[in-house]
Amino acid sequence: MPGVMELLPLDQIALQNLLDTVRRNFERFGFLPIETPAIEFSNVLLTKSGGETERQVYFVQSTGSLKQGEVPELALRFDLTVPLARYVAEHEAQLTFPFRRYQMQRVYRGESAQRGRFREFYQCDIDVIGKDALSVRFDAEIPAVIHSIFSELKIGAFTIQLNNRKLLRGFFEQQGIADNQQQMLILREVDKLDKRGPGRVRETLTSADFGLSAEAVDAILAFVGTRSSGHQDALAKLAAIAADNESLRVGVAELREVLELVRAFGVPETNYALNFSIARGLDYYTGTVYETTLDAHPEIGSICSGGRYEDLASHYTRSKLPGVGISIGATRLFWQLQQAGLARRGQSHVQVLVAQMDAAELPRALGLATQLRMAGINTEVQLESKKLARQFQYADRAGIRFVVMQGADELANGTVAVKDLRRGEQFAVAEAELIKTLRVEIEQSRVMGDAALPAAAAVVAP
Amino acid sequence: MPGVMELLPLDQIALQNLLDTVRRNFERFGFLPIETPAIEFSNVLLTKSGGETERQVYFVQSTGSLKQGEVPELALRFDLTVPLARYVAEHEAQLTFPFRRYQMQRVYRGESAQRGRFREFYQCDIDVIGKDALSVRFDAEIPAVIHSIFSELKIGAFTIQLNNRKLLRGFFEQQGIADNQQQMLILREVDKLDKRGPGRVRETLTSADFGLSAEAVDAILAFVGTRSSGHQDALAKLAAIAADNESLRVGVAELREVLELVRAFGVPETNYALNFSIARGLDYYTGTVYETTLDAHPEIGSICSGGRYEDLASHYTRSKLPGVGISIGATRLFWQLQQAGLARRGQSHVQVLVAQMDAAELPRALGLATQLRMAGINTEVQLESKKLARQFQYADRAGIRFVVMQGADELANGTVAVKDLRRGEQFAVAEAELIKTLRVEIEQSRVMGDAALPAAAAVVAP
Repeated sequence: MPGVMELLPLDQIALQNLLDTVRRNFERFGFLPIETPAIEFSNVLLTKSGGETERQVYFVQSTGSLKQGEVPELALRFDLTVPLARYVAEHEAQLTFPFRRYQMQRVYRGESAQRGRFREFYQCDIDVIGKDALSVRFDAEIPAVIHSIFSELKIGAFTIQLNNRKLLRGFFEQQGIADNQQQMLILREVDKLDKRGPGRVRETLTSADFGLSAEAVDAILAFVGTRSSGHQDALAKLAAIAADNESLRVGVAELREVLELVRAFGVPETNYALNFSIARGLDYYTGTVYETTLDAHPEIGSICSGGRYEDLASHYTRSKLPGVGISIGATRLFWQLQQAGLARRGQSHVQVLVAQMDAAELPRALGLATQLRMAGINTEVQLESKKLARQFQYADRAGIRFVVMQGADELANGTVAVKDLRRGEQFAVAEAELIKTLRVEIEQSRVMGDAALPAAAAVVAP
Repeated sequence: MPGVMELLPLDQIALQNLLDTVRRNFERFGFLPIETPAIEFSNVLLTKSGGETERQVYFVQSTGSLKQGEVPELALRFDLTVPLARYVAEHEAQLTFPFRRYQMQRVYRGESAQRGRFREFYQCDIDVIGKDALSVRFDAEIPAVIHSIFSELKIGAFTIQLNNRKLLRGFFEQQGIADNQQQMLILREVDKLDKRGPGRVRETLTSADFGLSAEAVDAILAFVGTRSSGHQDALAKLAAIAADNESLRVGVAELREVLELVRAFGVPETNYALNFSIARGLDYYTGTVYETTLDAHPEIGSICSGGRYEDLASHYTRSKLPGVGISIGATRLFWQLQQAGLARRGQSHVQVLVAQMDAAELPRALGLATQLRMAGINTEVQLESKKLARQFQYADRAGIRFVVMQGADELANGTVAVKDLRRGEQFAVAEAELIKTLRVEIEQSRVMGDAALPAAAAVVAP
């Protein structure tokens, strides 16, 4: 099907490594997993959406319902936020608040087929949901998680860009633009700054549609052009704002608290900055907003975005559930890393192929393989009788690093021959030393940052 | 939505532990991951299916297609075998054969809502696909994988039941029932033995529909009643068969080779047995067939089934692709284990809550948490200011075992207080010893078979 990403096994392993890293970091910060069904009632999914979402949703029908010409009652989730809202409302009494959940599942959108646009893609979301209230301190934890994930992914320097919707709102009030609707429209234009450039945006904002004065537009563009470099500069930029209304005061105070705590969370100051142009497309966010960009690849855009919202699930419950969260579009991110040459092809999970030297000795080879597996070494056995050269060829193509051989000579003197296909060398070890030797090699590769070799190996070992 | 399984976080962790164990064992035997899209073209999914499958398929339509009143071109996968066939045919040139793949994804079936029947459920499949030919030795590897998985899951004694379709076929020929179609119909009746009992099945087979003599039915029921106990008994039961036709000879020979190699793979003889009643519902299998049952819970039925097939993808490619594989219905298995009281509730991934003693010292608490996380200990920080008793209460409800506290006294003497909520005791350690102490405790719990504590912790540690 067009518009979906289907990978060969070694690329699948690379994607899996990416997802595993994300998951490990979510768990390290104390987020708990949930999964929701891909199919939900369409009236649940579509409550709060506008036209855009509805146009992209996939409807689902069983054969029976289709035959009877019914209107589809079911649809595929198009994000993880709406299912989260439904989940929290449904299970509210059984959850502990603040509810810290992660969710890593695929979502579905009937996008028109286009390079880099996917109809099915992984989203990796975390959210902290409070009941009635949630301290702004949680807004500072999110950048710490982002920092932890992208540091471990080793895809280059990145900056977590911070802004605050209250700050933006207060600024607009200061400019005499008090109408919420108008603020939203201007923010949407401002959101296009990177794509359209300041010239086009200025033109639109001074046109009859908006009717802003050139001075007001100058002030707006100057304000949203604000970027900080370093922690002290960020604080200084906040201090320089003449906060003469409530919204602006609160926005400045929140951003300042977030900045101070982000530092206390141990995020290096090179990894975060203020960026007053960030508004986030959705009308949904009410406080802190985040985008994350790769310093060397601005063209990729934000690889991790989110923010603070006032109420998660007003459509499904009367409880007030404020929250803060982010989302990583992992399929798109993986594709972009591939395009930018930053995605390493995964290496096989399989570490050893036990060769078949003599069909009569197959049970011995199987026994050797069992020993290796019990030591946590992923092992395949050559089951079909083939020339040794073809066994090497298979291992090489399949990305298996070590071929372990025990022929008549080795059997006679209690050794095993090991061919290391990566280094292109062969050596002999005493049979009793085989596991130890392979473990050392595998562990070395792992420490050298070789994502190929599953960390699990170290765990399974007694 | 009815007919789907949605779990609270700690149950989700238990399911995740189950899936992780399955995946780890697939990888240990050298299987590589693939994932295919949930949505495929319906004409691809429905090529070889009969009426039953078609009745259960969910069709998918984008809004545009729906509005134009089009017939749905898309459908959700209802198993992982058809997508595998399409995948192998599509990527044949880029794959290495024998192609050993695992796939763990959800599948969708428009089942009528019923207890224990799911419309969305995880399948965990492995298959080995040969090009043109695939040695029967691979049939012996499958029980080794099954044994490895279910031993590690620790859900009680289990038996991998083995049979061979050629053996069954040869036996029917011997009884003068040479017609393939008739054999299939009888096999289907035989497949109902466990559900209906021998009386009803005998009645059906001697009725006008089948027209078998009472003697023939006796012979059939005696044959399909064959069960072995132990390796030698299995070999003896095979040797006792008067193999006077080709199909029977080949069936016996294949089963014998499989039995011998299953033992060489290190599977204890208590974990496998011949069971000549196993036919598997699908017309698809041609050689070895497997079912796996829990000895103490026969009512659960087979928890892992599969077999050998002649040609995976005849609808999609001219290449002949014989294979052997199994499937674990993980959602249903998890549900059944819960029903049977065999599923432990998962324990939180979160190992430590760093308490907040004094809001002014929050940065210190955050620093402590960062150290713990860098040592691979999953840690949450109490961000909201609350009484200590309520912090304990939260940790207890959320399933977090350790609460780490550093108040004025501890700060003064360089210690940390640790409350172990599981043991209900509190102790003090020097700050420099905290990580070591917690690691020892966590590792002990892990070794004691406490699935709660993520093995990952050991890996991340330097």
